Amino acid sequence: MSETGNHKIHIFGAGRSSYFLFKYLHDRIEQNNYQISIYSNEIANPVWKSEFAKFNWETIDIQDLEKVSKIVSDAKIVVSMLPAALHIEIAKLCLDQSKSLFTASYVSDEMKSMETDVIEKGLLFLNECGLDPGLDHMSAKATIDSIEAEGGKVVGFESFTGGLIAPDCMDNPWGYKITWNPKNVALAGQGGAAKFYQKGSLKYIPYHKLFRRTELVDVPGFGKFEGYANRDSTKYKDIYELKDAETVFRGTLRIPGFCKAWHSLIELGITDNQYKIPNAENMTYREFTNLFLAYNPHDSVELKVQRYLKIAQDDFDLWDRLVFLGLFEETKIGLKNPTPAEVLEKLLIEKLKLGKTDRDRIVMHHIFEYENNGEQKKRTSSMVLDGESPAKTAMAKTVGTPLAIAIELFLKGEIKVSGVHIPVIPEIYAPILEQLKSEFDIKFEEREI
Amino acid sequence: MSETGNHKIHIFGAGRSSYFLFKYLHDRIEQNNYQISIYSNEIANPVWKSEFAKFNWETIDIQDLEKVSKIVSDAKIVVSMLPAALHIEIAKLCLDQSKSLFTASYVSDEMKSMETDVIEKGLLFLNECGLDPGLDHMSAKATIDSIEAEGGKVVGFESFTGGLIAPDCMDNPWGYKITWNPKNVALAGQGGAAKFYQKGSLKYIPYHKLFRRTELVDVPGFGKFEGYANRDSTKYKDIYELKDAETVFRGTLRIPGFCKAWHSLIELGITDNQYKIPNAENMTYREFTNLFLAYNPHDSVELKVQRYLKIAQDDFDLWDRLVFLGLFEETKIGLKNPTPAEVLEKLLIEKLKLGKTDRDRIVMHHIFEYENNGEQKKRTSSMVLDGESPAKTAMAKTVGTPLAIAIELFLKGEIKVSGVHIPVIPEIYAPILEQLKSEFDIKFEEREI
Repeated sequence: MSETGNHKIHIFGAGRSSYFLFKYLHDRIEQNNYQISIYSNEIANPVWKSEFAKFNWETIDIQDLEKVSKIVSDAKIVVSMLPAALHIEIAKLCLDQSKSLFTASYVSDEMKSMETDVIEKGLLFLNECGLDPGLDHMSAKATIDSIEAEGGKVVGFESFTGGLIAPDCMDNPWGYKITWNPKNVALAGQGGAAKFYQKGSLKYIPYHKLFRRTELVDVPGFGKFEGYANRDSTKYKDIYELKDAETVFRGTLRIPGFCKAWHSLIELGITDNQYKIPNAENMTYREFTNLFLAYNPHDSVELKVQRYLKIAQDDFDLWDRLVFLGLFEETKIGLKNPTPAEVLEKLLIEKLKLGKTDRDRIVMHHIFEYENNGEQKKRTSSMVLDGESPAKTAMAKTVGTPLAIAIELFLKGEIKVSGVHIPVIPEIYAPILEQLKSEFDIKFEEREI
Repeated sequence: MSETGNHKIHIFGAGRSSYFLFKYLHDRIEQNNYQISIYSNEIANPVWKSEFAKFNWETIDIQDLEKVSKIVSDAKIVVSMLPAALHIEIAKLCLDQSKSLFTASYVSDEMKSMETDVIEKGLLFLNECGLDPGLDHMSAKATIDSIEAEGGKVVGFESFTGGLIAPDCMDNPWGYKITWNPKNVALAGQGGAAKFYQKGSLKYIPYHKLFRRTELVDVPGFGKFEGYANRDSTKYKDIYELKDAETVFRGTLRIPGFCKAWHSLIELGITDNQYKIPNAENMTYREFTNLFLAYNPHDSVELKVQRYLKIAQDDFDLWDRLVFLGLFEETKIGLKNPTPAEVLEKLLIEKLKLGKTDRDRIVMHHIFEYENNGEQKKRTSSMVLDGESPAKTAMAKTVGTPLAIAIELFLKGEIKVSGVHIPVIPEIYAPILEQLKSEFDIKFEEREI
C-alpha cells in the first residue's frame, strides 16, 4: 500500500468509450498524485496499455465478487465503465466499504434506493455523467437555471441528441454509421410506447409509429435533422424541476430519411428480438427478408417489399437504404437460430461500419420556451462535436471526459455533495461545463430567438 | 366413502364454459352410477346448483393445495376447468396419487414432460378436448386420416375457427359480440409474430400487420369470413403428422371488416398491455384516445384519428365501428392506472355485450389440398353451430360436450390409451365425433371440390 493511497482510482471496465476517461486521468497522473488501476474482464488493448503505461492493468473475472471486493476496499474511489447491469453489485460493495462511485450510466432504481445510506456515510455515487445521459442533463439544467435566475419561467422544453457521422464521411445512403453498441441501434425505441408531454397533454407513441411521428429539428449552422421520441420524457419534468413546463420532450436525432427507412424495417418485422428463426444459418439475407412477405410465386422479393410497404417506385431515398443494407443479397446469414433483430444487427455491423478515416459527429440541441415579464421567449442551446478517428470518436470523448473531470473535481474537494446523484446541480455541472469549454472546446452555443 | 367410489368425478372450476360439461354428466348420473363433485373458488351460481342438484357443490380455496390434494386422492378421475395456468399443480397431485386428468386447455410443456411417469402409472392426462383446442384437432385429424386411408397425401392444410354471433343477432357495426374472455379478445394476436408454412416457405407476420394480412374464407352456405393467422401454425405439421404438407396455416375467423377496424386500434396503440396510464380514473374515453394522437389545438379527436390513420371520410364500415366502440365518448373511464388494453377491454365488455336474446355462432372450416393417384384434389370440412341463449352458447356447448363424452368413454373403458394426450388419435376422436353428430347434431360436412 502506497502513501498516496488516498488518490487510488480503481476503474472497472475498459470498453471503447473509456479512451478519453483514461486519457484525461493519465495526462494528470503525476500532477494530481493519482494511482490508477484498470480491472477488466478482457485482456487489455495493447495499444492502450502502452499509451496509458502509467496505469496498473489487471485482467480479472468481474463475476468474482470476492476479488472485486478486495479491489474496492483498496480504492479511494471506484469508477465503473462496465455494462450498466453490473453497476449495482459494485455499488453495494462501495457502500459496504464506504467508497464513492462514478459511472456514466443511467441510475437504476436499486441504486437510487441506496441514497439514505450513501448520504449517511458521506459518499457520492455519481451516475449519468457521460454524454447522453450526462452532458444533456448538464447543459439543459445550466440554461434552465439561468433562465430562472433571470426571472423567467420555462414553459416548454425539448431536447435532442444524435450520435451521427461527420457530413464529409457520409458515403452511404443511410447517412449513418455505427459508433456505439449495434444491438442498441437494432433495438432502438423498443420495450414500450414513448411518452412525453405536449402543451399540457400526456402523449404516447407506440413503437410501430415511433419512426413516423418524428420532428424536424433545425440546428443553426448544421442543418436539419429528424428527431424521434425517447422512451420516457415525462420523468424529466421532475428531474429538471420543470414545474411550469407544458411540453417536455426528449428525442434522438438522425439524418432526414433515416426514420422513414427504419420504419420500413419495423413494418417488415425484422427489428423483432422476441423469437428465434430456426435454420437461419444456411438462409440468405434475401430468404430472410422473404420470411416476412406473403407467398407469391411470380413477384420478386423486391417487388413484394415495394407493394407490401407501398413504396413508390421512385422513392430512391428509401429504397437505396434498404438495398444498401443488404436485405436482398444472396449471401448466407451464418448465425444459428438468431432473432430477426440479431440478423439486422449483423447487417448493420457489416454495412454501416465506421471506415478507417471516418469521423463521427455528436449533435445536441435543446429548445427552451419561456416567459419573462409577460413575454413569450425562446432560447436554444446547441453543441456539435466531430470525432478525430474511428477510435477517438466524439462519442467516446463526450462520454469519458465529463466523467473524468467529475472525478478530478471530487478528489480536489470541489464537489462536496453526497448522495446518489446525476449532474443536474450547479455544484456538479457548472465546473464540468466550464472546463469542457475552456480546455476541450466542447461548448454549448445559446441563441435567443 | 361410497361403494361407487370408482365413479367419483371431481371437477375443479365452474366457469361459464362448464355448463354443457355439467349438463352432459348430470343427465347420465344415475345411468352411469356417477358421483360428481364440483369444487370452485367462487360460490356456485344458484341456478346451476338447482339445475344440477345431484352434484355435490363445494366452495374451496384452489390455492390450498393440502385441501386440493385430499380431493384428488378421493377421486376416480379429476377434471380441471380452472384457468390453464392452474392445471399444472392439479396435474402434479394427480400423478402423485395415480388419478387420470381431463382438461379443455392447451397442454403445457411442463405437463407434456410428465408423459413417461403418466404412462408408467397407466394414467391418461387428456388435454385440449374442448372446441379450439379440441374439435379442431378431432375433425382435422379425422379427415387427414381418411384421406391417407384412401391412399392420398395431404400437401396443404388450412384451418379456421371463429367464435362469432348468429347473423340475426348482429345488431352492431362490429358484427361481433363477446362470447368468451374479453381480455383474450383485447390481447388477440399479441406475444410474438404469427408463423406458418405457405407452399414450403416459413412465413412470419408481426402483430402490427396481423390484422391486415388476412385471408378471405368462404364457408359454403354461411358466407365469407376473414381469417387472421394464429400464433404458431408450424407446430401442427408435427402434431397432425402432416409430413408432406407445404402449407400449414391456422387462423381465427371474423366477419369481413372486423380485422381492418381492429388494425386501427393496434395502429393507435390502444391494444398495448405493457404499460399503465397514470390518472386514467378521471379521464374520458375521448381523452384516452387523444393520448395516442399528436397535439393539434384546432382539429377534433375524430379528425385527428382520420388523418393519422388515413381513414377515408366515406369509409363508414371502419368509422362506424370506431365510433360504436365509444372511443370518442365523453364518459369517464373509471379505472385506476389501467393499461391501454384494459381500457379497451372495458369498452368491449360494455359495447359488445351479448344481449338477452342473442345467440352465438361457432364456425369451423378446414381446407385440405391433397394428391391421390397423381391428381390434385381439395376437400373442405365445415361445422357451424348456433347457441341457444347468452348462457347456453354454442361455444360452451362445443367446449364442454366433447370433454364430457371423453370422460364417459374413459370411464366405460372405451378409451384405453395412457399418456399425456390431445385428441388426435382415432381411439379418442372417432367415438367423440360420432356421438357429437348422432346425439347433438354437431357435425362436420365434408365437400370434395
